[in-house]
Amino acid sequence: MSAPNRNTLWGRALVDELVAAGVSAVCITPGSRSTPLTVAFARHDDIHVFSHLDERASAFFALGRAKRTGEVTPLVCTSGTAAANFHPAVVEASQSRTPLLMLTADRPPELRDSGANQTVDQEKLYGDAVRWYKDLPEPEADDRKLRSLRTTAARAVAEAEGTPSGPVHLNVPFRKPLEPTPVEGDVPADLPLDAREGRGDGTAWVRTTPGAPDLDDRSLREVAEALDADRGLVVAGPADPPGVDREAITALAHATGFPVVADPLSGLRYGGHTRAVTVLGGYDAYLTSEVTDDWPDPEVVLRLGASPTSKPLRKYLARTGARQLLVDPAGAWREAEFTATDLVTAEPSRLAAHLSRVVGRGRGTSGAGDDWRERWTDAEAAHWNAVDDAREEGATFEGRVLADVVDRAPDPATVFVSNSMPVRDLDRFGRPSEANLTVLGNRGASGIDGVTSTALGAGSATTDPLTLVTGDIAYYHDLTGLLAVGRAGVDATVVLVNNDGGGIFHMLPIEDHDPPFTAQFKTPHGLDFEPTGDLFGLDFERVDLDGFADAYEERVASGGTDVLEVNVDAETSHDTRDRLQERVVEQLG
Amino acid sequence: MSAPNRNTLWGRALVDELVAAGVSAVCITPGSRSTPLTVAFARHDDIHVFSHLDERASAFFALGRAKRTGEVTPLVCTSGTAAANFHPAVVEASQSRTPLLMLTADRPPELRDSGANQTVDQEKLYGDAVRWYKDLPEPEADDRKLRSLRTTAARAVAEAEGTPSGPVHLNVPFRKPLEPTPVEGDVPADLPLDAREGRGDGTAWVRTTPGAPDLDDRSLREVAEALDADRGLVVAGPADPPGVDREAITALAHATGFPVVADPLSGLRYGGHTRAVTVLGGYDAYLTSEVTDDWPDPEVVLRLGASPTSKPLRKYLARTGARQLLVDPAGAWREAEFTATDLVTAEPSRLAAHLSRVVGRGRGTSGAGDDWRERWTDAEAAHWNAVDDAREEGATFEGRVLADVVDRAPDPATVFVSNSMPVRDLDRFGRPSEANLTVLGNRGASGIDGVTSTALGAGSATTDPLTLVTGDIAYYHDLTGLLAVGRAGVDATVVLVNNDGGGIFHMLPIEDHDPPFTAQFKTPHGLDFEPTGDLFGLDFERVDLDGFADAYEERVASGGTDVLEVNVDAETSHDTRDRLQERVVEQLG
Repeated sequence: MSAPNRNTLWGRALVDELVAAGVSAVCITPGSRSTPLTVAFARHDDIHVFSHLDERASAFFALGRAKRTGEVTPLVCTSGTAAANFHPAVVEASQSRTPLLMLTADRPPELRDSGANQTVDQEKLYGDAVRWYKDLPEPEADDRKLRSLRTTAARAVAEAEGTPSGPVHLNVPFRKPLEPTPVEGDVPADLPLDAREGRGDGTAWVRTTPGAPDLDDRSLREVAEALDADRGLVVAGPADPPGVDREAITALAHATGFPVVADPLSGLRYGGHTRAVTVLGGYDAYLTSEVTDDWPDPEVVLRLGASPTSKPLRKYLARTGARQLLVDPAGAWREAEFTATDLVTAEPSRLAAHLSRVVGRGRGTSGAGDDWRERWTDAEAAHWNAVDDAREEGATFEGRVLADVVDRAPDPATVFVSNSMPVRDLDRFGRPSEANLTVLGNRGASGIDGVTSTALGAGSATTDPLTLVTGDIAYYHDLTGLLAVGRAGVDATVVLVNNDGGGIFHMLPIEDHDPPFTAQFKTPHGLDFEPTGDLFGLDFERVDLDGFADAYEERVASGGTDVLEVNVDAETSHDTRDRLQERVVEQLG
Repeated sequence: MSAPNRNTLWGRALVDELVAAGVSAVCITPGSRSTPLTVAFARHDDIHVFSHLDERASAFFALGRAKRTGEVTPLVCTSGTAAANFHPAVVEASQSRTPLLMLTADRPPELRDSGANQTVDQEKLYGDAVRWYKDLPEPEADDRKLRSLRTTAARAVAEAEGTPSGPVHLNVPFRKPLEPTPVEGDVPADLPLDAREGRGDGTAWVRTTPGAPDLDDRSLREVAEALDADRGLVVAGPADPPGVDREAITALAHATGFPVVADPLSGLRYGGHTRAVTVLGGYDAYLTSEVTDDWPDPEVVLRLGASPTSKPLRKYLARTGARQLLVDPAGAWREAEFTATDLVTAEPSRLAAHLSRVVGRGRGTSGAGDDWRERWTDAEAAHWNAVDDAREEGATFEGRVLADVVDRAPDPATVFVSNSMPVRDLDRFGRPSEANLTVLGNRGASGIDGVTSTALGAGSATTDPLTLVTGDIAYYHDLTGLLAVGRAGVDATVVLVNNDGGGIFHMLPIEDHDPPFTAQFKTPHGLDFEPTGDLFGLDFERVDLDGFADAYEERVASGGTDVLEVNVDAETSHDTRDRLQERVVEQLG
């Protein structure tokens, strides 16, 4: 395999090693400076190339794919502002521990800070948001340089998939010619074969074997002793990366007898394991002090994952005097109420598996803690009955949409929820069930940007049907992301909850200060989104809350990509939401 | 004037001082954490608040406004990825010396890196792209802290408007309550009046008096001596900031007798001054070595502004043995051919005014240099005649659109041109004229992102009719930016040159490598943009090249906002472009 010039060889070596390290897809936006990378990716047989036209959307698409697969997803862009457009997704990737690899093409060193066109300072462009940054040397068909490149590729993947996983940035300078144009003598004929082709047979130049923190026997016993209690909880926040070991956590819940408080993004609210253990999903409604002040405090709480979405849950945990053990594989301190008593640095699924074997001598089936569990299951029952009643009454609240999606989604399915209200409504109204739903969201930084793109990226990685539940501001914000439906060939049922503006602000005290509430916070835009169907080749249908569930089921069954818009008045929705909660609190308090 | 709490007081003090420092407009995106800033801006009588829903578009809108006015334009966003969405515009602002002020709301210090929701690392988020960064202290109704805040506001504006001007970032932490809710004792009753209200009467806490580099008499004489030559050129690259002193440059051109090579973004290609001096605009076509090898070299070239858009011009300057004096007010070294012989640190308009009084003793009218000027005017004539012929023949090339816009634009008008082909086509086909056209583009980093938003932001600052000439990829990339037409109430005639993909790549050698040329570079998307009219409430009309000029004139006359799409085949266009150039080169060479 001969290369016409050093850039072609350089691009090919980098891509070969990425593929050998397990990379299976790349997101590329067009540009000239990145030509050697683009050509190398496009010509590789074993990689799926997604071509996008907006770098911001491209990065979020890669993010979604990486969230769904756990695999490093590289991004390619040309030099200049293109690279800055990756930044929002890089921040989300950093916070949510999603492995991304930004390959930003750059001008050669002498052209930096020289006034040359489309040349900006790309060094450490994403600051501390990346796990690793490297400015690659100038391409050259040199033995050692090529070994360094191959090693760098292996390392970039390993760093992105490390603990904690996250984004990695390689800045890649090229000088012309960028195309696979023959350049006499540019690649010496006597260049060693392995510099040219690597180890061969798709073997990585460096195979990487990652380790992850694990406890020694003594530490394990100490944690197990801490869990030897009648009143305990497993609190599972958003899993980052997603893909928790349900079996291990279930075994631990069994062994301890603790209910599992399952964030909708924890990977533990939905699935067959909910038959075997007590999985709680209504806490966001009933964990008010009016209710819990009469409850005995938990003795111990084992916290997994990121900080939970539910503020009432976080406040409840802060109110209790419980011993709270934060388990984090990277030893991160992620508990912003500052009431945690223990930080345990360990890979949570493995820790759970170990603990389930040594904890409490069969406590889970001993009858101890039955009162405690009953309190929680009673509260759950009160909440879900109230929700069911409200749904049957046809009450107006956006949470119905999420409740309907959970009920009617195909099994299995991937469900992506936007920030702002959808994730909060899923948290409160998405009842735990046995369906195999993979629920994802961008809860690292909780932005409403890139939501459509992230969902489509996740959908690109699975044959599960994809449902996206988003709001009107998020849908507008990522309009360009819809192009991926056609270009990447990803189908989705897009549920667009349209309350004409920032409905969430009705939950905040600023609602009472108008102006500027309406003009600067609620920001009604009056956009009619129907033309987005024609623009991006989607079927667009508008339904009301009562018609939603059936329409949703039909749309999912019909395949293809549809936008199903539900118009809801945000103020009414929030009133109903509050009233519903009051009813439950009254009953329990 | 009493404040209900420290945050309200803090926000108000900051906004009062920004207004006192000359800020007249702000771009705000909704969010909770930024509430004290948003409320303060919204309640101030003397500031125009633009409300946007996409932070990326908001930042580019502010950029455009700042480019058109030269005034610092602040941006407000909430914490999290919102701030990262500003980054592309910040990079362009840095490179194009545009004064922006990013006010990013943040969580209070104890919540940073704590796992708290929507809390990311915003410290130095834009790296070295800003002129100044400061993390503000926690708000407090404390005399010294408020003085520091008022001083910081004055300094932020001064730093952004300094030499070189550019973006400034203030990170602004707030803790709850964020709303103007009364908090007993939060603002002490005995807080001194000036801490509470500043100097009063709209007087800035600190008035700033900026200086700019100027030469002493001896240095001025030395530069003047260098210009004492028969064959010289004034080369005016993109003006950054825009708003060059045409009178001063005209006087210098007069005094030296040098033709002015005027980049379309130099501020010197259009205007009444073109009657009085030789302004060249066709150089991009005729400055090939076939033509100029027979020419005597210039003796001296005085270069103003950023690096010219035209590559043939840059290459010509590198080929000549001329003494090249780069004039830059910030002493920046912006000449990436590395053939400049002199760097002169001085404010260019003032330097030109001084030089015109001391240079060459009336050389401009002496007849010396007539041959030199004639060479250039002959070349110009050959080029423009060829262009006129091609237009009359109805030849297919995108440059016709730019030529038509320049001919038919109202006088005065603001014309914003996208990167990629429009600015290059304007460079080659936009004949110098007496019309008072303010031509703007994003030539700092030359991205195709944010083009619509930047144009609309520029349009928001002037009563001149606004024309935007953009391409299909740029139009798609900044789709969300179109919302500003309705929300900000800016009208524009949007000329959308649609060649279904990245037509510019036909100019590059990658064209010969297909695949991956079509799929990864040209990237035809097949988007029918007509629904964007309904989506954003614009009139959408499709015309062919022959019908364009009249349709454009009608659209401009009708007012309101229209999109006028011209469909052109990119390959044909590039062929015609090349053929036209060959004809001119043949004639001259």
